[in-house]
Order: sequence, then structure tokens, then C-alpha cells
Amino acid sequence: MKFTTFVAADGRPRLGLLDGQQVIDLNAAQPQVPADLRAALAAGADLAAAAQAALLSGAPRTPLADLTLAPLLPEPGKTICLGLNYYDHAKEGGREKPEYPWFFFRGKSSLIAHGAVGRVPKVSTKFDYEAELALVIARDVPRHVSQADALQYVFGYTCFNDMSVRDYQKRTPQWTIGKNFDATGAFGPVLVTADELAPGATGLRIQSRLNGRVMQDATTTDMIWSVAETIALLSDCMTLEAGDVIVMGTPAGVGQARTPPVWMQHGDVIEIEIDGIGLLANPIRNEEA
Amino acid sequence: MKFTTFVAADGRPRLGLLDGQQVIDLNAAQPQVPADLRAALAAGADLAAAAQAALLSGAPRTPLADLTLAPLLPEPGKTICLGLNYYDHAKEGGREKPEYPWFFFRGKSSLIAHGAVGRVPKVSTKFDYEAELALVIARDVPRHVSQADALQYVFGYTCFNDMSVRDYQKRTPQWTIGKNFDATGAFGPVLVTADELAPGATGLRIQSRLNGRVMQDATTTDMIWSVAETIALLSDCMTLEAGDVIVMGTPAGVGQARTPPVWMQHGDVIEIEIDGIGLLANPIRNEEA
Repeated sequence: MKFTTFVAADGRPRLGLLDGQQVIDLNAAQPQVPADLRAALAAGADLAAAAQAALLSGAPRTPLADLTLAPLLPEPGKTICLGLNYYDHAKEGGREKPEYPWFFFRGKSSLIAHGAVGRVPKVSTKFDYEAELALVIARDVPRHVSQADALQYVFGYTCFNDMSVRDYQKRTPQWTIGKNFDATGAFGPVLVTADELAPGATGLRIQSRLNGRVMQDATTTDMIWSVAETIALLSDCMTLEAGDVIVMGTPAGVGQARTPPVWMQHGDVIEIEIDGIGLLANPIRNEEA
Repeated sequence: MKFTTFVAADGRPRLGLLDGQQVIDLNAAQPQVPADLRAALAAGADLAAAAQAALLSGAPRTPLADLTLAPLLPEPGKTICLGLNYYDHAKEGGREKPEYPWFFFRGKSSLIAHGAVGRVPKVSTKFDYEAELALVIARDVPRHVSQADALQYVFGYTCFNDMSVRDYQKRTPQWTIGKNFDATGAFGPVLVTADELAPGATGLRIQSRLNGRVMQDATTTDMIWSVAETIALLSDCMTLEAGDVIVMGTPAGVGQARTPPVWMQHGDVIEIEIDGIGLLANPIRNEEA
């Protein structure tokens, strides 16, 4: 199954089910399913059955291309990001393989949808892209879950662009501020349920392209910490809840590591593509434009 | 005005208004006010008028001491914490005055109420306390707000215990993981609206006491970044939204900086008290107990 979140006529985000390149308003077709993905997961809605019924129904379809999208989870739970999760990216930043993931959080105000404007901040020009695989937690994960059991708690996978304001990220050892500027976390457009991908979403080509030029080109197999390992590590510390998001880090090729550095600018288009999942594209504009 | 959040008979958290040591269910007395503080702020509810009307009404009162409390904001927006915001604490950690705040975020699953159990993790014994002033944002703050205008966006102030798992906090340069273990962020019990305190809540004695022994004893006047300055700095980066929380950092005296170090253990009671705001007390138990 594939899901998206679109902006309805009333301006509110709603959960959509993909039927090819067409989208069904799932809550309209199956009213027992909440219109928000996190709420649906938290309520334990049987999304597989609802999706099956909706696909077999005559529910109206709208072309995906005609919709304005919202961030996949407009009201996310925890959004937990990993730094340095590809060997080549850690190396290009002058770092050895880290011994533990570098975790930081993103807040809701940083998130944007596919197609929405990513903002170059007024206070910085050092605005970088990061192609990442993201996953959505299906239901509360027991504390201290084993790696062997971890993947059953993944609802599905999507694309994320962890756009980073590098000078703020490095003003102190805490990266959080540089990862939480408004309109810097692009998220979507489509979630693919875990059953449609290899376990842990390995083996997928992941790219970023800036104005069509390939900047990052790697495979999710090269992640240092796998999805299962990451969930197990986090579960030693906290309860991962339905609708929480984990953003799995970026491979080599970011703008700051290039000679000379490449920064995103007003008028650029940045694309993140993960094979088998989708294409996330965002125009870049200055904050004041 | 003073507010709290208590657990109702149906198990759900509800916004309470204090009348002395008695609590009024504000939504029951004034049904136009949402029963959740963040939702009430986001809806632009006139809490002052509703509180005034409720206090003058014959609405039922329940003694605060008879209620089970919830975290002040059970569904918080961003919870933004500052590290190293008192000169003496930065110094005890071997650091100079930082040039910019060390920001990190907390997630909902880390938060607990006054009276709830703080958990010593199974995976660590290095469990420390941090007495902090916290504030709740009243309504969305314009980007790039000036310090002069910043305080008008503060709804009120409360106590926070930013309990920290020190070895996880220091496993990598990112503190986030050590600040997000389940049941480590105590929050409440009472929010005092900004009009009842000095501007920016300066001049308040702030203490932590472990089993009655004073461990931290300082004044909020000693914060390196004031509340107004912190809001202004954050607004250069992101939209602070109604119901977001800022946790203002801790003074000297934490357990890790003592010789020998002091760690909280099963059976301890940790109290945070801020004069004019309230007393936040939590028993400490092992995760597995």
C-alpha cells in the first residue's frame, strides 16, 4: 500500500490512499479510519483492510499530481534523526565511524510537504540538503525490543530531506538548532508500507539532485546502523510510539563537504529520490521572498 | 492566575484552574475553553476572562492535593531546552560562558507529572537532576521578534526537572538521547501566568533538594540568556507556536559535578522549588521495579 497526506478543500490535511497515480480520500471512503495517519495508527485502525475495501470501492479518485500535499505526518510524534549514518558521509566530514548514533530531534514547525518551498534563512546562506530514508512507527514499541523483533513495528518508509543550516548547526556542539529552522524538513510525498520493500528497506538507491545535477548517490545498504538496530537502540531509552518518525541519516555528497562548498539558493530545485519509494521535490526560496 | 493539568475520572488529562489550593475543572465550568492547555492557547481562548468567570461561579472545587496530576502540557508542541544557561553550572562542567545557547529538544514520551515516578533506566546508573524554570508560549511568535517585544508571548512559568542520563548524554556530542529517556522530564505542577511574576521571571530563588538535602540553590537572575533574549534568538530560526515550551537551563550543583558524583537512586525523592511558582516533587524508582 501507498499513502500520502493532501490538503483538502477546507485547508486541512487528510490521509490519502494511492491507487496507481490516483488518490482516494481514505477517511471519506472508510469513515472509521481517522483522517490523520498518526491518529489512525494510534487508534490501531486496520489500515490494510480499510485500504483493500477502499480500492475495491467506487470511491472518488483524484490524480496525485492535482493535489497540494501536506507533510506526511502533519502532527508527528517524536521525529528522531540520526547523524552520520553512512560510512562515506562520516568520512567526508572528517570523522571516523561513530560508536553510537548521533541522535537529534526535529519539531513540527520545521516540516514541509513535497512541492512546498524550502526556505533559505534570512540569517544564513549556508543552506544544505541531505537525502534520507525515513520510517514511520506503526504501534508502540516495547522497551528493550530485540533487533530480531524490531521491524514488525515499522509501518512504512518515505523520503526526507534533512535540510540543514550549517553555521547554526555548528555554533555549538548541539546540532538541533541548525536542523529546526522553519521549512527545512521535507517529508513525503508517499509512504510505502514495509511489506512492499526488503526488510529494513535495504538495497534501495538513494539520490539527491540539485537543479538536476546528482549530488548524492548511494544505497540504503550502506547505512551504519540498520533500521532494526536503530529501533532496538532507541527502545533501550524511550518508548517509540505510533506515529513517531525516524530519519535514517544521509550519505556522502552534501554541499558543505564539496570544494568549493555548494549552498542551496533562491530559485534552486532540490530533489530526493529513493527507488521503490518516490521522489520528493522542493523549490528553494529566500525567507524574505 | 494559576493553572494545572489533572487526570479526570475517565483517565484523561484536563486543564484545571487554581482557586487557592482548590482546583476548578475549567472546561466543565467554561465549556468554550478546550480541556487541554495547548489546544486552548492555539484556539486563542480568552483564558483570563474564562478564569475570572469560573472563579466567581459556584463551579465545584477539588483540593489540589486530592488530584492525580498530568504533565502540564500532555501534548506539548516543541519542548526546547537550553544547556549551560547559568554561569556557575557552565563553570562546574569545565566550560567557559558559551557564545550561543546549547539547544536540544525533548519529546512527549520523556515527560511526567508532579508526583509521578522518575525512572532510573535499566541501562544506566548515572541518573541526575536539573532544576529549571520552564515557560509556555501563549501564541505564535512572529519571526525575528525583538527582545523588547518577546515577553508578551509568554503565557506563564512553571517548574521543570530536566533529569539526565549522563552517560548516554555524553556518548556522542549530541545530548538529545540522554535527555529523552522515558519518565525523566518532570513538568509542573502549577503554571503561574506571566503577569504575576517579574518580567522574564527574574529574581526567583530556584532550588533542587534530594531527599531533603539542598543540591542546587540559585536565582533566575543568574541566567546567561534571559527569557526575552532566548525567545528573540529562537525566533530568528523558527516559529515558536502556542503551547511550545522553553526549558531555561540549570544552575550549579548537579550530581555529576560533585565529588564523589551523586546519582539518583531507587527510593529517592527529588524536589524542584521555584519561589512564587511552586514545588515539583517526584519519587525515583528503578525502571524494572
